[in-house]
Amino acid sequence: MRYIDLNCDMGESFGCYELGRDAEMMPLISSANIACGFHAGDPSVMRRTVSLAARHGVGIGAHPGFPDLAGFGRRDMRMEADELRDALIYQISALMGFAQALGTRVRHVKPHGALYNMAANDEPMARAIVTAISELDANLILVGLAGSQLLKIAQAGGLNAIGEVFADRAYHADGRLVSRKTPGAVLTDSAVVAERVVKMVNERKVTTLEGVECELDFETVCLHGDTAGAVEHARAIVERLRRDGVQIMPFSAK
Amino acid sequence: MRYIDLNCDMGESFGCYELGRDAEMMPLISSANIACGFHAGDPSVMRRTVSLAARHGVGIGAHPGFPDLAGFGRRDMRMEADELRDALIYQISALMGFAQALGTRVRHVKPHGALYNMAANDEPMARAIVTAISELDANLILVGLAGSQLLKIAQAGGLNAIGEVFADRAYHADGRLVSRKTPGAVLTDSAVVAERVVKMVNERKVTTLEGVECELDFETVCLHGDTAGAVEHARAIVERLRRDGVQIMPFSAK
Amino acid sequence: MRYIDLNCDMGESFGCYELGRDAEMMPLISSANIACGFHAGDPSVMRRTVSLAARHGVGIGAHPGFPDLAGFGRRDMRMEADELRDALIYQISALMGFAQALGTRVRHVKPHGALYNMAANDEPMARAIVTAISELDANLILVGLAGSQLLKIAQAGGLNAIGEVFADRAYHADGRLVSRKTPGAVLTDSAVVAERVVKMVNERKVTTLEGVECELDFETVCLHGDTAGAVEHARAIVERLRRDGVQIMPFSAK
Amino acid sequence: MRYIDLNCDMGESFGCYELGRDAEMMPLISSANIACGFHAGDPSVMRRTVSLAARHGVGIGAHPGFPDLAGFGRRDMRMEADELRDALIYQISALMGFAQALGTRVRHVKPHGALYNMAANDEPMARAIVTAISELDANLILVGLAGSQLLKIAQAGGLNAIGEVFADRAYHADGRLVSRKTPGAVLTDSAVVAERVVKMVNERKVTTLEGVECELDFETVCLHGDTAGAVEHARAIVERLRRDGVQIMPFSAK
Repeated sequence: MRYIDLNCDMGESFGCYELGRDAEMMPLISSANIACGFHAGDPSVMRRTVSLAARHGVGIGAHPGFPDLAGFGRRDMRMEADELRDALIYQISALMGFAQALGTRVRHVKPHGALYNMAANDEPMARAIVTAISELDANLILVGLAGSQLLKIAQAGGLNAIGEVFADRAYHADGRLVSRKTPGAVLTDSAVVAERVVKMVNERKVTTLEGVECELDFETVCLHGDTAGAVEHARAIVERLRRDGVQIMPFSAK
Repeated sequence: MRYIDLNCDMGESFGCYELGRDAEMMPLISSANIACGFHAGDPSVMRRTVSLAARHGVGIGAHPGFPDLAGFGRRDMRMEADELRDALIYQISALMGFAQALGTRVRHVKPHGALYNMAANDEPMARAIVTAISELDANLILVGLAGSQLLKIAQAGGLNAIGEVFADRAYHADGRLVSRKTPGAVLTDSAVVAERVVKMVNERKVTTLEGVECELDFETVCLHGDTAGAVEHARAIVERLRRDGVQIMPFSAK
Repeated sequence: MRYIDLNCDMGESFGCYELGRDAEMMPLISSANIACGFHAGDPSVMRRTVSLAARHGVGIGAHPGFPDLAGFGRRDMRMEADELRDALIYQISALMGFAQALGTRVRHVKPHGALYNMAANDEPMARAIVTAISELDANLILVGLAGSQLLKIAQAGGLNAIGEVFADRAYHADGRLVSRKTPGAVLTDSAVVAERVVKMVNERKVTTLEGVECELDFETVCLHGDTAGAVEHARAIVERLRRDGVQIMPFSAK
Repeated sequence: MRYIDLNCDMGESFGCYELGRDAEMMPLISSANIACGFHAGDPSVMRRTVSLAARHGVGIGAHPGFPDLAGFGRRDMRMEADELRDALIYQISALMGFAQALGTRVRHVKPHGALYNMAANDEPMARAIVTAISELDANLILVGLAGSQLLKIAQAGGLNAIGEVFADRAYHADGRLVSRKTPGAVLTDSAVVAERVVKMVNERKVTTLEGVECELDFETVCLHGDTAGAVEHARAIVERLRRDGVQIMPFSAK
C-alpha cells in the first residue's frame, strides 16, 4: 500500500488577527507545522492549534521563524548562528510545553519562510538548526526543502531529516523552486495541482517549468493553507490521492 | 544546622542592553529566577543565564512576566485568565528547553513584577498561574509573596508553593509590603539589611514600619540584583548569615 | 439643513493580517480614526489608510492606543502619565507624517480601546492626553465618550473636544455604555440601529436599556467596522439618514 | 576659520535599559542622531534626548533603523522598498513630533546600523530613503557614508546629502571601512583618534590600513557614544581640534 504525508503551516493567527482556515485544513492533512510566536502565532493560538491537531490525529511540528511579526518571517534576516540556535530552542520548547500540557508531543520541526529558504543552502544557518534540534531532542524529525544542503547537513549530524515538495509550486529542471516573481510559479488549478501530487507520489518526479522531468527525494508534500482556494486545492488532492489508493498518513523517521 | 534559600531575579538583559550584575550575584545565591523573554531576557540571555546558574549549583527558576518589554513587566495589565495561563506555559516551557539543552532542569516558577503583585491577591490570575504549572509539570515549585492568596490557592490546588520575603523592603504590621512610593520603603544600608535577614531566618519575624514585629511564613529571601549596591547588600547578607552559622542552600519542596 | 458626522476606526490591519473592510466603509463615513502602529496598524497600512481617507474626502484622525498589539489595545494597562503622553505624541506625529507626505493633514485624535475607556474617567490619563495634544498641535480636535470627564478636562484645558455616541451599543439611563458582557449590549439589527441613529441625530436622545430616554451631547456617531455586518449596518444608517434629510459630513471644531 | 561638525548616535536607551552616556557626550558634539523607537529608543527617551540636544544647541537628527530591537538594528533585513520608505516616514515623523512639542525642529536624517550599511550601496533601499525624506520634508539633510551611492542618489534626487567619516574606524585605500571583524578595524587610543580627526579636518585625508592616504569628501565626523572610552575619545578629539583652532559646529546644507 502506498502512502504519503501531507503537511500544512498552521496556527498563524495572532491576537485578534485571524489567518488561515485551520479548522477546515486540519482534517485533510497528516502533519501540522505550528507557528511558535515569532513570525506568527501567539500562546493561545498555539494551544488551540496543538489541541486541534491532536484531535485529528495529525502529527505536530514546530514551525519556528525569524523574530519578525511585521514581515511574517518572510524577510531575510542575517542572524548570527548562535542567536539563531537559541531563537529556535526558545520557539520549539514553547510549543513542546503546549504539547506536554495537552498530553501530546512535538514530532517534527520545519523552519518557516525566509529562514527555511536561507537555511536550505547557508551552512552556518543549517548548522544552527541542526544544533538546536540535537541539543533539545535528537528524536525530532527535521523537515526541509527536498535536495537541500540543510537536509544533508542534518543527516550527517545524525538527525532524522526528510525532504518536502510543494503541491502548487513550479520547479526548475535542476530541482529548484521557481521564484514567486516568475509567472507560473504558483499553480492555481486544483485539478492540475492534484494530478501533479499523484505523479510526485507515484513516480517521485515532477514535470518542470522547462518541460523535462525532475526526480525528487521527499517524504512529505506541503499544502498551502493561506492562499485563496487553499482548502479547495487540499480537498482535490486528498480525493485524487484516495481515488488512486494512496493513503495519507504522517511520515515516519527515515 | 539552620539554612535558608537566597533568590534573585536574573537574566534581565536584552539584546545589546545589559542589566544586572548576574556574574557577581550568582555565586552568592541559591535560587535564580530567570526572565523568559516577555518583560526581559531573550533566548541567548536565557541560555547564558541557565548555564551560569548550573555552573554555580544554583536552583533554576522561570520568572515569567507580562508581555511588556517597554515597561519591564512592571505595569499592571489586565490579561484574561486563559491568555495569562497560555503566556505562562509559553515562557516556562521556553526556559525548560534551555535547561534541557544544557543538561539541567527548571525547578521553580516565580511570577515577575506587576504579575507577581496582581496575582498575589487576584483569584482568577492566581488560578491561571496554578493551572499553567499544573498542566506543564506539577512538580514545579511556585514561589510567591509570603502570606498571599496565591500561595493558598496553589497549595489548595496541590502545588508546592512557598513564600518569599524581601531582604531590603519595609513591611507593614499586617505583613504587607510598604509601597515603593512611601519613604523608607527600600532599605539601603547593607548592615541593616543583613541584620534583618538574620532576624528573619532565626526568628521568622521582621520589625515593621509601625515598629511592631510581624511573623512571616517563608522559605526563601529575595535579594535584588538590579539596584545600586545590590552586590554589596548580597555580600553583606551572605557574610552575616555565615557568621551566624546559617547555610545558604536551595529551598526544598514543602 | 441637519447634518451629522459618522466616524469609524480604520487602518487596523498589520503586516499580512487583514482586519476590517476599510475600502467598503470609507465611502460611507465622514471621519476615519486611523490606528498608529501600537495596538494595530503599521507604517504601510497607515499610508494606505490616510490615502484612502483623503480620496474620499473623509476627515483624518489619529487613533492611538496602548502598546499592546497582542491584546489589540483592549487590555487595561497602567501607564504613567508621562509615558502615556509621550506614547501619544509618538503615535499622533507618526500619522501626521503620512498626512504630510500625502498632502493632507490630521484633524482629530480619538484614543482607542482600553485607553479610551480608562481615560474617560481617570484624571491623570485624561490630562496626559490633553497635554500631548496641546504640545503637539492645539488645533487637533479630541473625540471622546459623550459626557466623559476626559471631554470636560480637555475643554477646560482649551482644546476642542467633542463627544461621540455609538450606533450599535446599548446605553444605561445615566448615559453610561452597557458593558459588552451584558446581554443586549450590542445591537445587531441594522434597521434598529439605523432608527436609533436617526433618533439620536434628531432628538439628541437615546432610549436606554432601562427603557427611559437619556439626553446625549455629541457631535459624531461611531460605527464599528470590524464586526460581522458592519458594512450592512453602515449602509442602513447612511440610507436612513439620507432619507430623513440628514447630511453626513465631518464635524467642525466646537 | 575652520570648522567641523561632530555627530553622535544618541537616545539609544529603551524602557529601563540604559545605553550610552548621552549627558556627557551631548556637550561635546554638534549633531545628535536620535533613535526613533525601532532599533532603539522609546517615546520618553526620544523626548528626553530631543530636549537635551536642544538645551546644548546641538542639531537634531532622526536616526531611523530596521524594526529590530533584539538585534539593535544591526542585522541585515531585506525590506521591500515601499515598506522601508513607510517605516522611515513613521520614525522620522515621530521624532518631528517631539521636536515640535519642545519648540525645536529636526534638521537631518542619518540611517542606523545595517540600514546605513545596506543602503550605502543598494539602489532600491537608497531610493526608498530619498523618497521618504522628499515626501516628508525636502529640507531635511541626509547624512550617509562618505563616497556612498546613497549620497549620489540623494543629490541627484535634489536632496541635501552630506558625507560622514568615522573618527575611530580604519579605512581601506579605496575609501571603504575596514570590517569590524578585521584586527585593527576600530582604533582605541584616544590620542591617535584625535590626531586622525585633525588630519581629516585639515587635509580631508585619512591614512588607510594599507598605509597610503585616501581623500574623503565629508562634512561631519561620527563619534561613537556606546563604546568603552567613548567619552574619553570625544574629549580628546574636541580638545585637540580646539587646540588646532577648529571650531565645532553643526554642518550646514550643501
